[in-house]
Amino acid sequence: MKFIIQRDKLVQSVQDVMKAVSSRTTIPILTGIKIVANTEGVTLTGSDSDISIESFIPSEENGNEIVEIQQTGSIVLQARFFSEIVKKLPMDIVEIEVGNHQSTVIRSGKAEFNLIGLDAEEYPHLPQIEENNVFKIPTDLLKAMIRQTVFAVSTSETRPILTGVNWKLDNDDLVCIATDSHRLALRKAKINTEIQSSYNVVIPGKSLSELSKILDDTSDLVEIVITENQVLFKAENLLFFSRLLDGNYPDTSRLIPSESKTNLTINSKEFLQAIDRASLLAKEARNNVVKLTTLSQGMIEISSNSPEIGKVSEEIQTSEIQGEELKISFSAKYVMDALKALEGTEINVDFTGAMRPFLIRTTHDDSMLQLILPVRTY
Amino acid sequence: MKFIIQRDKLVQSVQDVMKAVSSRTTIPILTGIKIVANTEGVTLTGSDSDISIESFIPSEENGNEIVEIQQTGSIVLQARFFSEIVKKLPMDIVEIEVGNHQSTVIRSGKAEFNLIGLDAEEYPHLPQIEENNVFKIPTDLLKAMIRQTVFAVSTSETRPILTGVNWKLDNDDLVCIATDSHRLALRKAKINTEIQSSYNVVIPGKSLSELSKILDDTSDLVEIVITENQVLFKAENLLFFSRLLDGNYPDTSRLIPSESKTNLTINSKEFLQAIDRASLLAKEARNNVVKLTTLSQGMIEISSNSPEIGKVSEEIQTSEIQGEELKISFSAKYVMDALKALEGTEINVDFTGAMRPFLIRTTHDDSMLQLILPVRTY
Repeated sequence: MKFIIQRDKLVQSVQDVMKAVSSRTTIPILTGIKIVANTEGVTLTGSDSDISIESFIPSEENGNEIVEIQQTGSIVLQARFFSEIVKKLPMDIVEIEVGNHQSTVIRSGKAEFNLIGLDAEEYPHLPQIEENNVFKIPTDLLKAMIRQTVFAVSTSETRPILTGVNWKLDNDDLVCIATDSHRLALRKAKINTEIQSSYNVVIPGKSLSELSKILDDTSDLVEIVITENQVLFKAENLLFFSRLLDGNYPDTSRLIPSESKTNLTINSKEFLQAIDRASLLAKEARNNVVKLTTLSQGMIEISSNSPEIGKVSEEIQTSEIQGEELKISFSAKYVMDALKALEGTEINVDFTGAMRPFLIRTTHDDSMLQLILPVRTY
Repeated sequence: MKFIIQRDKLVQSVQDVMKAVSSRTTIPILTGIKIVANTEGVTLTGSDSDISIESFIPSEENGNEIVEIQQTGSIVLQARFFSEIVKKLPMDIVEIEVGNHQSTVIRSGKAEFNLIGLDAEEYPHLPQIEENNVFKIPTDLLKAMIRQTVFAVSTSETRPILTGVNWKLDNDDLVCIATDSHRLALRKAKINTEIQSSYNVVIPGKSLSELSKILDDTSDLVEIVITENQVLFKAENLLFFSRLLDGNYPDTSRLIPSESKTNLTINSKEFLQAIDRASLLAKEARNNVVKLTTLSQGMIEISSNSPEIGKVSEEIQTSEIQGEELKISFSAKYVMDALKALEGTEINVDFTGAMRPFLIRTTHDDSMLQLILPVRTY
């Protein structure tokens, strides 16, 4: 294998596949990046066996030569060293050449690295996915759907299924749900799909977070293929594979209350900042709990009390309060996470009493919903 | 105590004194910030008993009212909470009022914090320093002298004296020296001083690092007062006290070779980057060691070899090589630290054989000097 490549394209591609490489793998060759050069260009692969990422650098792009392939071939190079080296090479052009016994030379200007490589034949094969049932989502919508749900997955392995996001596709309705059993985030969207299938799968939260970091902020379509135990996301010159989680995701639909007793309409940013301030003293206590109390004339009070440090209270003017008076305590972190995930300047909060889950939604937008369980304080 | 203050001035001042507050102090009241309001303004104090910082916010600055003192007095508030609170207050104006039993109200807009304070009378007194023997340094020169020496102090407590920087003042010559016994950094400067005294003291490296972070990049003069066991730096509205280290600093003058056998003149940035690249593979090995070899026609080679990973070599064109041929191994980190500390684009490296310390200096500038011990590789 021998090729000459533009350094900035190589750096970007290495950074993308590095997202899948873990230093703590039990399969030694997966600490490496696989590099394959053929006449069309260079393909890099990184994998931790849960996530696999393949990035393709075409020989030519928009009439510009990016790679000059002098000899096709393949090699696996230690990811940690290879990624550091390409970042720090002195010139804009890099030459990579594999010699005897997988010994690989990386040249740029007068700098020359000799790395001991591994046989690419020993690198695990990526899952083979038949691309019959493809559906497509604009990249920016996909990233928004991930951002608005993935933070609510469970970080505990006691119920592994809750560490994933439940994706349900039914004709052209896609619904994404995450819950850690203290809060729930839901986002739905209409998808243009030519397939008639329906899917109900659970994608690891970590996979979606990594995918989101790699994807550019464009409206280009991402193709998605779901199989029995894998999901494949295809963007331009990029394949992102993730395994799916085994098991049935709990039915969350009955958790979402259909009625409410107290309804607030409030500026999202003012609400968020008041909770943030009240939580400053609450962080010391176990649960980071703040209290919301409805007052007269459309005012609410956000407060918290930590006996050894002090207390804090703040009044906020709402746009509207309807229904019963209320005192309710909740995790400041959960409500702040939910408010950050929602879009729009004004939000609705629907309570059904101090002991029941409450809903936060953007006013006039039913595509997303955040549900939070209150905290008993007595 | 009651006053109304501009929030941004308070935030800046709190941030400055926080540099001296440690959460791991054995004296509980030192986890707090002392606040004193008198008719001239508000004074904040933070201390970990090694470093003490006093920041003064005047009532008026350039004709603008910054603080409105309504009642003089004092209080100590928990530094961690107080600093977080002032950063997140909603409005530009803050009111602070001490009530019964040190209970302190912090108000801004509709947010109201009640913090449990401590009696300021119980806060330790700062050292009393007589300001007879003052000398003055421009702030930017002081910061440069700190930056160019403090990185070379020892991080090990086996010889505590080496964790400090040796400051020697003799009439108008100030010399700062730091060494961890593997390398030495020296910076000297002419100081305008009216005092005839000479000093030889050791200032903790940590104190100088914190001082440097607080000082603005100006040419305003900093006043320095040295006593038997304290040093005081006085800038505008700021007092920075540090204890001095006990003990005698070793005489380092005999370490600096006066003769040399091989002399390089080389572009500092090219030299630094080549060493940085060579060290990528050397990091795995214990000492992060790279090798320098003189070649013919003014070339040198920087190389390193890690048997299990691979090897790297790079040739650099020097401006000039004089004297004997040389192969020498050294810590990439030490040389990179030294090169980053030096100013100027071209540097001189003076070697006295592969086993002797070598000197790095900026060409045509004898005010600073970096000395490094080589590493034996056989």
